[in-house]
Amino acid sequence: MTLADQPPAAALVFQTLLAHGPLTRAEVGRRTGLSPGAVTKVATPLLADGWIAELGRPAVERSSGRPATLIAVRPERARFAGVKVTGDELIGVLADLTAQPLATARAPLGSRDVGTVVLAIARLVAALRAEAGAEQDGAVHSVGVTISGDVDGQTGTVQFSPFLDWRRVPLAQLVETATGTPTVIENDVRALTVAEQWFGAGVGLSSFALVTVGAGIGCGISIGGRVVSGAHGVSGEVGHLPVGGSERVCTCGNTGCVEAVASSHAITEQARQAAGEPALTIDDAVRLAHGGDPAVRAVFARAGHALGLALASVANLIGPERIIISGEGASSYDLYEDQIRQTFAAHAFGAAADCDLVVRPLPFEEWARGGAAVAAQRLFAPVK
Amino acid sequence: MTLADQPPAAALVFQTLLAHGPLTRAEVGRRTGLSPGAVTKVATPLLADGWIAELGRPAVERSSGRPATLIAVRPERARFAGVKVTGDELIGVLADLTAQPLATARAPLGSRDVGTVVLAIARLVAALRAEAGAEQDGAVHSVGVTISGDVDGQTGTVQFSPFLDWRRVPLAQLVETATGTPTVIENDVRALTVAEQWFGAGVGLSSFALVTVGAGIGCGISIGGRVVSGAHGVSGEVGHLPVGGSERVCTCGNTGCVEAVASSHAITEQARQAAGEPALTIDDAVRLAHGGDPAVRAVFARAGHALGLALASVANLIGPERIIISGEGASSYDLYEDQIRQTFAAHAFGAAADCDLVVRPLPFEEWARGGAAVAAQRLFAPVK
Ligand SMILES: [Zn+2]
Ligand SMILES: [Zn+2]
Repeated sequence: MTLADQPPAAALVFQTLLAHGPLTRAEVGRRTGLSPGAVTKVATPLLADGWIAELGRPAVERSSGRPATLIAVRPERARFAGVKVTGDELIGVLADLTAQPLATARAPLGSRDVGTVVLAIARLVAALRAEAGAEQDGAVHSVGVTISGDVDGQTGTVQFSPFLDWRRVPLAQLVETATGTPTVIENDVRALTVAEQWFGAGVGLSSFALVTVGAGIGCGISIGGRVVSGAHGVSGEVGHLPVGGSERVCTCGNTGCVEAVASSHAITEQARQAAGEPALTIDDAVRLAHGGDPAVRAVFARAGHALGLALASVANLIGPERIIISGEGASSYDLYEDQIRQTFAAHAFGAAADCDLVVRPLPFEEWARGGAAVAAQRLFAPVK
Repeated sequence: MTLADQPPAAALVFQTLLAHGPLTRAEVGRRTGLSPGAVTKVATPLLADGWIAELGRPAVERSSGRPATLIAVRPERARFAGVKVTGDELIGVLADLTAQPLATARAPLGSRDVGTVVLAIARLVAALRAEAGAEQDGAVHSVGVTISGDVDGQTGTVQFSPFLDWRRVPLAQLVETATGTPTVIENDVRALTVAEQWFGAGVGLSSFALVTVGAGIGCGISIGGRVVSGAHGVSGEVGHLPVGGSERVCTCGNTGCVEAVASSHAITEQARQAAGEPALTIDDAVRLAHGGDPAVRAVFARAGHALGLALASVANLIGPERIIISGEGASSYDLYEDQIRQTFAAHAFGAAADCDLVVRPLPFEEWARGGAAVAAQRLFAPVK
């Protein structure tokens, strides 16, 4: 039996247990709107096949006097490998059904050639399997590979990855063949958003956005328990929101994009000009700003203003409960924070300003975990 | 029996019939993922209670040789009154279960006082009932009132309506008491989006946005069959997206808002300056632009540029399949169109530019129909 063969009510019960931990059958019924009979009917095969388990001790004595048993997801029931592909290395994680990491590993990429990368992914997955003592076939249910760019998860195709210079690469099929394991792929920011939705700072929220600040500026949007994918494969392109205020030209060719002012590359370039040091790195810029250099601090403030406008745009359009700010840029968040909050407060419309802004540094292993979460999600929340 | 008492599968079957017209049970099964047995089980009480009906003639001879019967929603099974409240009049419609209008009526508003407006709504609903020959109690299932501003549909409260100058008005309860009929309320643009989603230019789309251009600039967003409401009651505030490019001050106090350049008020003000005629109206501005006045045409082009940036922001963030442009401004759409399309094409990121832009003039009766659609939706797509 696979979870995907179960009726829709089974997925609902399973997802409820996943998000809200051990519950009694009555609590599951209240949260899902299913009748007690329907919960029992759906839970029985899930119990029989080990997807969920009854916990040893009764939770509470109910008014009827009968003890109510808690049921919970069995995280060890299935394992997933998640791999994030960057321009120069792979970051991998082996995780359980709740995306808890069992093993992590990294591997450098000698070349960005498709064949080389696919082979490296297969080796990394094998290493993760070995490290977790799961050498036997089938011990890893599926692999989730995440990559920045225009990724079509439905067809398993990387339509365009700027930093790998890939176009129309059927990556899911290639990795599936190389690993012998079912494989899904997803845009890296959307995958991280899936992990945050099910297992992170997005659990239980009606909606949230995850904005990542770094080499690029990305955004994942979760509404009503689903990550928005975009009808044409594009969504969350917060880096190319046209907020104006600068004549700097973006990688997309426009002026006025958030990314043209606030990406790490843009900050480095502006800091070089401001400090008059053409060899300055982003780390130098952070150091100078922390040291109080007013011109370099102004560069970060300008980036913070553009980011504040971007966050206000997200809040005004979709009104999320929370916006999570992450990415490499989050490590120097103190340099932008005041300006981000000030601009956000000024431009968020009415009650949209009540949106919670949270900073959350997520290392690349968390991004790899996004791949495992996407693979697991295909199992417990199949897309029709 | 009410529809809301039925199991989730019943709502799914009903919604599928609503959106996709007469279908055989097998087709319903394919579209919903339910087994033939489950479809029949769910359809039986719906048939018995008159929510759906079997159509007289068999649709097709199937390969088995047995004729398949088509089933369809019975629009006449329930009636809903929709009322749109503007600053100086009410527009009402009595509609069936598929939001098809059976009668329409308008009533001027002598005052914006809450009591006066509630009484006028009750009179309008009574008039609609009478006009449709539905005087008996209960013939109107429920009333849907729509109003611009910050409207909390869950609690039935108008949090803030700028043009009526209302704050925290429990409008649903007041209208329910005055009409003796269950009442729901909703923001007017979101209600129009609900009508478009179920019965208009949004049917069958995975996602779409409806942008209304007029005194204000609003936006409804539908993703995965649900209209986004915003965690704090705010969503679709496309008029206050900070796109820069102008020093004009918006009603919200900021500069750079789309509305500060592209609302009918903003266009009128800019056209007055451009033409040097301080008494110019929006109709005069349209006339001058149609007559070829270059300065006034430039005002519309500037508005079109701001609108193009707003549409590109919507496309980049949520990647809708289609954007529908409506509102009073749609009647002079030819004056903005070139600039809107040019700016949109330049700033929509990658495949987001594939989003379909459609202009659709929707008179106020269609907006009132949005109220009826929201009322009907509570019946067939209840929110948990
Ligand atoms: Zn750009
Ligand atoms: Zn504004």
